[in-house]
Amino acid sequence: MRDVTLYFRGVNSIFSDTIAAVSTAPGPAGIAIVRLSGPQSLAIADLLVTCAGDPPSSRPGGTFLHGRIVSDGEEIDEAVVLIFRAPHSYTRDDVVEIQGHGGQAAAQRLLEAVLNAGARMADPGEFTRRAFLNGRIDLVQAEAVADLIRARSDRAAAAAVEQLEGRLSTQLNTLYDHLMAAVADLEASLDFEEGELPASVLDNTDATLAAAEDEIAALLSTWEEGHLLRDGARVVIAGQPNVGKSTLMNRLLGKERSIVTHLPGTTRDTIEETLILGGIQMRLTDTAGLRDTSCLVEQQGVTRATDSIDQADLVLYLIDASQASTGADLAKLQALQPERTVVVQNKCDLVDGPPGIPDGPFETIACSAVEDVGIDDVQDALRSRLVQMDTPPHAVISERHRALLSGARKLIDDARKLASQDEALLVPAADMLRAALDMLGTITGRTYTTELLDTIFNRFCIGK
Amino acid sequence: MRDVTLYFRGVNSIFSDTIAAVSTAPGPAGIAIVRLSGPQSLAIADLLVTCAGDPPSSRPGGTFLHGRIVSDGEEIDEAVVLIFRAPHSYTRDDVVEIQGHGGQAAAQRLLEAVLNAGARMADPGEFTRRAFLNGRIDLVQAEAVADLIRARSDRAAAAAVEQLEGRLSTQLNTLYDHLMAAVADLEASLDFEEGELPASVLDNTDATLAAAEDEIAALLSTWEEGHLLRDGARVVIAGQPNVGKSTLMNRLLGKERSIVTHLPGTTRDTIEETLILGGIQMRLTDTAGLRDTSCLVEQQGVTRATDSIDQADLVLYLIDASQASTGADLAKLQALQPERTVVVQNKCDLVDGPPGIPDGPFETIACSAVEDVGIDDVQDALRSRLVQMDTPPHAVISERHRALLSGARKLIDDARKLASQDEALLVPAADMLRAALDMLGTITGRTYTTELLDTIFNRFCIGK
Repeated sequence: MRDVTLYFRGVNSIFSDTIAAVSTAPGPAGIAIVRLSGPQSLAIADLLVTCAGDPPSSRPGGTFLHGRIVSDGEEIDEAVVLIFRAPHSYTRDDVVEIQGHGGQAAAQRLLEAVLNAGARMADPGEFTRRAFLNGRIDLVQAEAVADLIRARSDRAAAAAVEQLEGRLSTQLNTLYDHLMAAVADLEASLDFEEGELPASVLDNTDATLAAAEDEIAALLSTWEEGHLLRDGARVVIAGQPNVGKSTLMNRLLGKERSIVTHLPGTTRDTIEETLILGGIQMRLTDTAGLRDTSCLVEQQGVTRATDSIDQADLVLYLIDASQASTGADLAKLQALQPERTVVVQNKCDLVDGPPGIPDGPFETIACSAVEDVGIDDVQDALRSRLVQMDTPPHAVISERHRALLSGARKLIDDARKLASQDEALLVPAADMLRAALDMLGTITGRTYTTELLDTIFNRFCIGK
Repeated sequence: MRDVTLYFRGVNSIFSDTIAAVSTAPGPAGIAIVRLSGPQSLAIADLLVTCAGDPPSSRPGGTFLHGRIVSDGEEIDEAVVLIFRAPHSYTRDDVVEIQGHGGQAAAQRLLEAVLNAGARMADPGEFTRRAFLNGRIDLVQAEAVADLIRARSDRAAAAAVEQLEGRLSTQLNTLYDHLMAAVADLEASLDFEEGELPASVLDNTDATLAAAEDEIAALLSTWEEGHLLRDGARVVIAGQPNVGKSTLMNRLLGKERSIVTHLPGTTRDTIEETLILGGIQMRLTDTAGLRDTSCLVEQQGVTRATDSIDQADLVLYLIDASQASTGADLAKLQALQPERTVVVQNKCDLVDGPPGIPDGPFETIACSAVEDVGIDDVQDALRSRLVQMDTPPHAVISERHRALLSGARKLIDDARKLASQDEALLVPAADMLRAALDMLGTITGRTYTTELLDTIFNRFCIGK
């Protein structure tokens, strides 16, 4: 709700209608909020609110009042009514928030009263869309709002807040400005007669473009880091059949109460659960046992397990401590990277004395999933490995950003090649750079289409 | 949040600690609110809120500010911060509401920051409990808050708002005052020497007590009406086996999207679903077919069906229109009250021409549940019958109120009998009336125990 002024289009709203929605989550709760935005917000509040003193429309922004909400002569609720006056509001338009009692029927009655008084039901994300269209935030910040609302781990929320603050926007705007300067230089060079263009001008432009490419590369490198925040870390439990993979999975899930969802496996032999450990969200996958088999169904399971391992951020490779280690295990381990693998010697309760931890490059932990021994050690290993992988939250780009940045980089690269070949190719090179600028502008929303906005804001919940 | 002053104990709070909780429902949403109440609320806000201009503690009540919530040097969220100064708040203590972004992680981070800054996690209903203990609302109004939050139908919400407004409280207070006056008169009469008490004094007291009993009776009569709002109307689908009861049930549920919950039957042969029709919540019960049977399991089902019918507000009695009506149907119908029964002739699609509606005292509707014919008529009948039963929302008492009112009535009745027997019995009669006063006082909370408050406020959600 901070004012990040990028390209504010003035105090007068471009919207003539007033939208409304319940902005709090559904369900029994102390408070529910119905939010209105648009030129009629205060007039609608006047119609509905009975209070001591001035009516809502006569009150200054930044104040709230206690009142009764009366619709068709019936008292709907007691409420606290917040007055936001344009441009000092979430949308930059006049906004009224009515805080009533929570609960399904109470919030619904309040919303109906507001709609009956002349507001229109808001579309998903429409408040934030208006905040964008009125120039209060850019598209990258709007996307951060959706990310923050959906965040299920501390780190994901922290990264979204950083993006909402405008750090990524600032980087993208600086990049845009640098590229714009290079384009201007190149276009200026077109005014020289053929053969009179000093080589230094083109060299300078090329250096600026190379710097812009480096900036893009730095941003693109955050993509891989960012997937941990966006999607959760991919942790795969692998190993031979019957070493206790499912038991370990259940034990890890059971120890932590933070199971947030149950995703039914897309295949019948790979089971995936979400777990939050140390503020990091992870997708824990239980795989089919890795053994050579002639059974077609089982072969398919093993293929999927192998795919999961290839894509994993971390593999927990289970060995049965009560069995002599097999050549098969050694072969499988050789295919794994030690920095992405933790070896877990399960069933250590069946072994007399301390389990023999094998030599080798792999971090190894002994546990008994059945007896609940050493599971804390497994959790600690998971946590510390993933914290290492998880960078401190900063400018982390999304898939949309990645695609546009990659496209821009390709265009800049092609333009540099053209420009270095022949002066006659400077015109198409300049056109390419303009296209790259357009792509960069589409990230923050300097350039946008209705379709783009629809795609972005349909991800939102209603009421935001 | 209206000021209903009953016995306000002064501006200085009786609470020394500051409580906090998320007051909005969990889940992705535009807005989540963390509410603080207690003497440290503003100091905690000062610690956490970074904003332009004065810190929260220097701002007047009834205003809000935009700020950034910073904890341990990390920005947690952007937020709108509302300042409520005692006694102008929900609890009558200083209250701060922090409106941040909705969503699981975002709200939790905000709450943790507030708890780290010195607030204590609030117990369920603790804000409302403080509102009661600080004298802003009475117990009847506190219970209305819980009812409103849980309300799933418009009518239940409307009744709760009425109670929250204080209408029932006013009636109970008037009753209390009348009884108090009678007790005072009776106690004054004890000062007379034996034999010198004018008969008119006792007659007047008795008349006042009789009036109080009438007032209690009027309140008690709302109990039966009220159960429709509290629990939903009990609608039972009954009839011989295989007349299409389950199909009708599914059709009624399927036509309406407002199925709010699926309650698995407590017995395997009685299935119950909740349906909201015309703003009225109903519990629709599908019963076992009513037939004489030697199967023990089926007998049990029939017994349960008969019980359901006895307790029903409305019975939909199904007859197979394609079969000649049986003596069994006539026998069952004779046991039903026409004002609580609608006869539904199902399978009318199997009958040529209009179904013959039998003569009799019962409203009769023809339909085909399978072919989806006439279901609207069944819904209309349901709706109009239940609206008739459903009184306009006003003073509707709860089970707790009913028990206390019944007890008080009994005591008043006994006291009157004693007082009319012998002047020597006036002392125990006065004691009984004092006990009745205590019972009435316990309804609104003039008299209360910690156990009573625990019982009432444990029904609440955290954050209210």
